[in-house]
Amino acid sequence: MNMLISLRLAIVLLEAAERKALELGLSEDIAIVDEGGNLIAFHRMDNAKIAGIDIAQNKAWTSVAMQMPTSNLANAALPGGPSFGINTTNQGKIVILGGGIPLIFNNKVVGGVGVSGATSEQDIEVANAALLTFNKMTNAGSNSNPNK
Amino acid sequence: MNMLISLRLAIVLLEAAERKALELGLSEDIAIVDEGGNLIAFHRMDNAKIAGIDIAQNKAWTSVAMQMPTSNLANAALPGGPSFGINTTNQGKIVILGGGIPLIFNNKVVGGVGVSGATSEQDIEVANAALLTFNKMTNAGSNSNPNK
Amino acid sequence: MNMLISLRLAIVLLEAAERKALELGLSEDIAIVDEGGNLIAFHRMDNAKIAGIDIAQNKAWTSVAMQMPTSNLANAALPGGPSFGINTTNQGKIVILGGGIPLIFNNKVVGGVGVSGATSEQDIEVANAALLTFNKMTNAGSNSNPNK
Amino acid sequence: MNMLISLRLAIVLLEAAERKALELGLSEDIAIVDEGGNLIAFHRMDNAKIAGIDIAQNKAWTSVAMQMPTSNLANAALPGGPSFGINTTNQGKIVILGGGIPLIFNNKVVGGVGVSGATSEQDIEVANAALLTFNKMTNAGSNSNPNK
Repeated sequence: MNMLISLRLAIVLLEAAERKALELGLSEDIAIVDEGGNLIAFHRMDNAKIAGIDIAQNKAWTSVAMQMPTSNLANAALPGGPSFGINTTNQGKIVILGGGIPLIFNNKVVGGVGVSGATSEQDIEVANAALLTFNKMTNAGSNSNPNK
Repeated sequence: MNMLISLRLAIVLLEAAERKALELGLSEDIAIVDEGGNLIAFHRMDNAKIAGIDIAQNKAWTSVAMQMPTSNLANAALPGGPSFGINTTNQGKIVILGGGIPLIFNNKVVGGVGVSGATSEQDIEVANAALLTFNKMTNAGSNSNPNK
Repeated sequence: MNMLISLRLAIVLLEAAERKALELGLSEDIAIVDEGGNLIAFHRMDNAKIAGIDIAQNKAWTSVAMQMPTSNLANAALPGGPSFGINTTNQGKIVILGGGIPLIFNNKVVGGVGVSGATSEQDIEVANAALLTFNKMTNAGSNSNPNK
Repeated sequence: MNMLISLRLAIVLLEAAERKALELGLSEDIAIVDEGGNLIAFHRMDNAKIAGIDIAQNKAWTSVAMQMPTSNLANAALPGGPSFGINTTNQGKIVILGGGIPLIFNNKVVGGVGVSGATSEQDIEVANAALLTFNKMTNAGSNSNPNK
């Protein structure tokens, strides 16, 4: 069974991330993409960086397209590292800054969240709030559908 | 005095558009941009066309960048029309399909809404729901700030 | 002898165009490029269309790159016309809307002016003000250099 | 209250930068963008580098989009640094060379200046001349509008 992230669920995830951002005193750009890497929802919090509009979406895309958190690439893409040069592929869509995290259900990447606007550590913390909410809603029984 | 559209207001506008879309039995992609054409919020309704992700955002951008509803361009850009060829400028960001409408406050374009996913007529109707909500909230006194 | 348009001259041309625009009650985007099509100066008048930032520059570029006023292309690029499809070449830089005019000295294209923001007729009228000033300054003896 | 940079003010800032450049014996490309990152005015001084046309504009854009001087990124984007890889996001618009500085009014980024053509240190010095002029004009009372 394939799990599709509904707009309603995506909004719940965005809201979880926004609450965490507010808690940390941050203004963030936050994106949710689906299993094809296509954008479902995006919110730019008041005063969040304009540059983050693109970066948040592409962090989410990267987490799906590379099937890993973008923070992995922050290391792997260093000169001498195994993924050096990966950020110029895919017309520059691959982002090697932390803040993108894949959403996994039944061992399959079903979407991704991407956050941009603060430091990578902070972006990751905000993205993790969305991830946590996603896992909570999908852990209520492995067959339960969070899209209610 | 310049009015800035907050994320909260943008979400209210998206919701108004989504309600109208549901009413009409449509699945739409909906975007809100600010006065500089930068994306504030985007929602893709369940089953809405993936192609509409780009189109909705660029309809919103076009409505701000050209200071007019994109439906104006649908006619003006016909061969022999005054704007023939305008959709290849700006790296293809100008969309000449109806569904993008500027949001105006105190005679100034302060943002735009863009809808894509159905016919242009339907997209326009959905975008108009957002416009109506925006005007209602900003007509409550010419100096009242809808960003509450 | 090659005539190079100085920044000072470019600004004089921009000011001539801006005065005409003000006279006509228009807000315009205005660009001056050199003989290589490279931008020398650009001004966006208050409230001028954001879309015109790109269009004005590329109208100026087109007038140099095609060695003709862009209004020529408005006709030639119609379906069935001799230049149909030209606006998708050069990565979309060729603009087929009137408002771009080459600046000619000693029978050679030495630069171009591009105006965008109103109707093509109005853009052309504003561009012509710059052209007129350019011609006045360069007609004071065929060897006289307007860059003083 | 939001402050909008008029063309007149942008030109004053460009002239301040140009005077500094002349003083230092430099030929510079100088751009002023608004709060949305959109170009208001651009001047290329005689003999300034053609490559600087794009770089100056994108330094200005970056300073607004990232809400910081681009010189911050020169360090942060080094391999191993917190922003490594940021210059391949946003379709290459983010410039990690010094010379872009945000213009701040009432604690808000209302625009940016970008300078390119010499060394980064020199570009920064020229950009600072524009910043200084901006601050002088806006420090005349926190509510005073420099757009006269």
